[in-house]
Amino acid sequence: MKLATYKDGSRDGQLVVVSRDLSSAHYATGIANRLQQALDDWNFFSPQLHDLYVALNQGKARHAFPFDPAQCMAPLPRAYQWADGSAYLNHVELVRAARQSEVPKSFHSDPLMYQGGSDDFLGPCDDVVVPSESFGIDFEAEIAVITGDVPMGATPEQGLESVRLLMLANDVSLRHLIPDELAKGFGFFQSKPATAFSPVAITPDELGEAWQGGRVHLPLLCTWNGRKVGMCDAGPEMTFHFGQLIAHMAKTRRVRAGSIVGSGTVSNKPIEVEGRREWPKGYSCIAEKRAIETVLDGKPATDYMRFGDTIRIEMKGRDGHSLFGAIDQTIAPLD
Amino acid sequence: MKLATYKDGSRDGQLVVVSRDLSSAHYATGIANRLQQALDDWNFFSPQLHDLYVALNQGKARHAFPFDPAQCMAPLPRAYQWADGSAYLNHVELVRAARQSEVPKSFHSDPLMYQGGSDDFLGPCDDVVVPSESFGIDFEAEIAVITGDVPMGATPEQGLESVRLLMLANDVSLRHLIPDELAKGFGFFQSKPATAFSPVAITPDELGEAWQGGRVHLPLLCTWNGRKVGMCDAGPEMTFHFGQLIAHMAKTRRVRAGSIVGSGTVSNKPIEVEGRREWPKGYSCIAEKRAIETVLDGKPATDYMRFGDTIRIEMKGRDGHSLFGAIDQTIAPLD
Repeated sequence: MKLATYKDGSRDGQLVVVSRDLSSAHYATGIANRLQQALDDWNFFSPQLHDLYVALNQGKARHAFPFDPAQCMAPLPRAYQWADGSAYLNHVELVRAARQSEVPKSFHSDPLMYQGGSDDFLGPCDDVVVPSESFGIDFEAEIAVITGDVPMGATPEQGLESVRLLMLANDVSLRHLIPDELAKGFGFFQSKPATAFSPVAITPDELGEAWQGGRVHLPLLCTWNGRKVGMCDAGPEMTFHFGQLIAHMAKTRRVRAGSIVGSGTVSNKPIEVEGRREWPKGYSCIAEKRAIETVLDGKPATDYMRFGDTIRIEMKGRDGHSLFGAIDQTIAPLD
Repeated sequence: MKLATYKDGSRDGQLVVVSRDLSSAHYATGIANRLQQALDDWNFFSPQLHDLYVALNQGKARHAFPFDPAQCMAPLPRAYQWADGSAYLNHVELVRAARQSEVPKSFHSDPLMYQGGSDDFLGPCDDVVVPSESFGIDFEAEIAVITGDVPMGATPEQGLESVRLLMLANDVSLRHLIPDELAKGFGFFQSKPATAFSPVAITPDELGEAWQGGRVHLPLLCTWNGRKVGMCDAGPEMTFHFGQLIAHMAKTRRVRAGSIVGSGTVSNKPIEVEGRREWPKGYSCIAEKRAIETVLDGKPATDYMRFGDTIRIEMKGRDGHSLFGAIDQTIAPLD
């Protein structure tokens, strides 16, 4: 099942069901108006939404209309929780290698996660508004899941069972604000502005065999200013699967329905070619490209994003069709 | 105006208007069912809620009933944002002095804030459920505000104008989980379980002259296991006022209606008595008491909380009446 939220001038938008091929959509009015409402009572609403999805795919939904990602808000335009992991340890290793710092051993058994702001998400085609280019504007391409209710002390298996929907995310980061902010010791705040999500959120079954062991075994495509820069495989190198991330969150608290959990920047290890390391899959954030340049050449050569830059993040199934629709954003100044 | 949320088995509860003296209440049904709904369209709903408040105070509300704080959820049982400051620098100085670490100069101009979890708040009389006493269970008594919409780049004055409601908070902290978590660099997560809020949220005018310069000029009372341990003045020593905290949040993002912003642990400077420092106002968290003991005697003597311990947090107006009702919680093990 594929779900999206259409802009209607309200804070939470209107829930729509989207066809598997992303060609058509249908308002879920009469079932549930908002995605959070469906998540709050998933066992009641999801079968009804699924019936509409089946009818839509069969061309039998009576008021279907062409689906337009530009009309989408984030599937959850605001949420009660956005917890973002850094589950691809290769990303952490690379960024640390560039500053000649080792990865602590505990990072291999204890997931890195931060609590993000969730009161104001961006739609997939909304501008990324930043007050200044000097903040070091970067994208971060990620996978994210939306959970149901999870009890305190849940196991990774229980965490995995709670996954209701998957999305793609652009966890916009302001790199030059990060060092001072992290030095204060309380984590990210100003360095993590509003996050954007893919046009549609999909149930795990839509991924078929690509959803295995709590990981999405498909490449994540990043296109920066029209140039393909990343096609990292999101699967095998995800050190902690989503069930583990959710269990980490639930150690000392309940996790409630509609919580969004991010994977962190999708990242792949280098390969050795004639004694030199290469990263043929590219990168899912510019900071990583700069870290690669620093490791190879002693200093970064790639600049961060400028106003007017575009970033497109997408994932295709093994049949070549877009699964979530594309995040497709432009960087823009604050008026 | 005073507002509360009554338990009704749902995730968001039922909005009630509470009389100024906290003796009676009235469902806001017919105006707005949930507090978030009122915050989303405050200019429309608040005059209607205020009319009901006036009638209730005059004994003219037709279906008033006795107000019972034990029936309350947090005024916002879940929220789209919980951002907690550490705006009483004395607290930071004291905790750092105990570990012989100086406060960086930037802390005097740049507020410390962290992004907290907001998907699952505790009602004022709900148990604080913790998996293990060994986590170092502590209370933190704070003031919190709920905001309206704030544009990106807002000034402190705009931030202050956005304050809709005030509450008290118990920002429960698991002290022994903090060092490892902060060492990872991404801020708090497991060390900050669900936060509790006072029975009622009040509009700033309810504070009269005690609300000045974005600060609440009244003592915050903390009673641990029936013993009064804190009566710190929340006013003059709040280094950053709420407008400054909100402007800090809005530097790189919009802050949306219903965001909760905390002051951090209310804390007062020591006084000199015969060459020795004393803290006659007591403390608003046990970590601070332990820091005082460490500064004076070289080591902490007070233990953190045990299962069965109680904590009561309250604030009284200059007339001696409770303003927000009391947070009154018991520490309990996870079943």
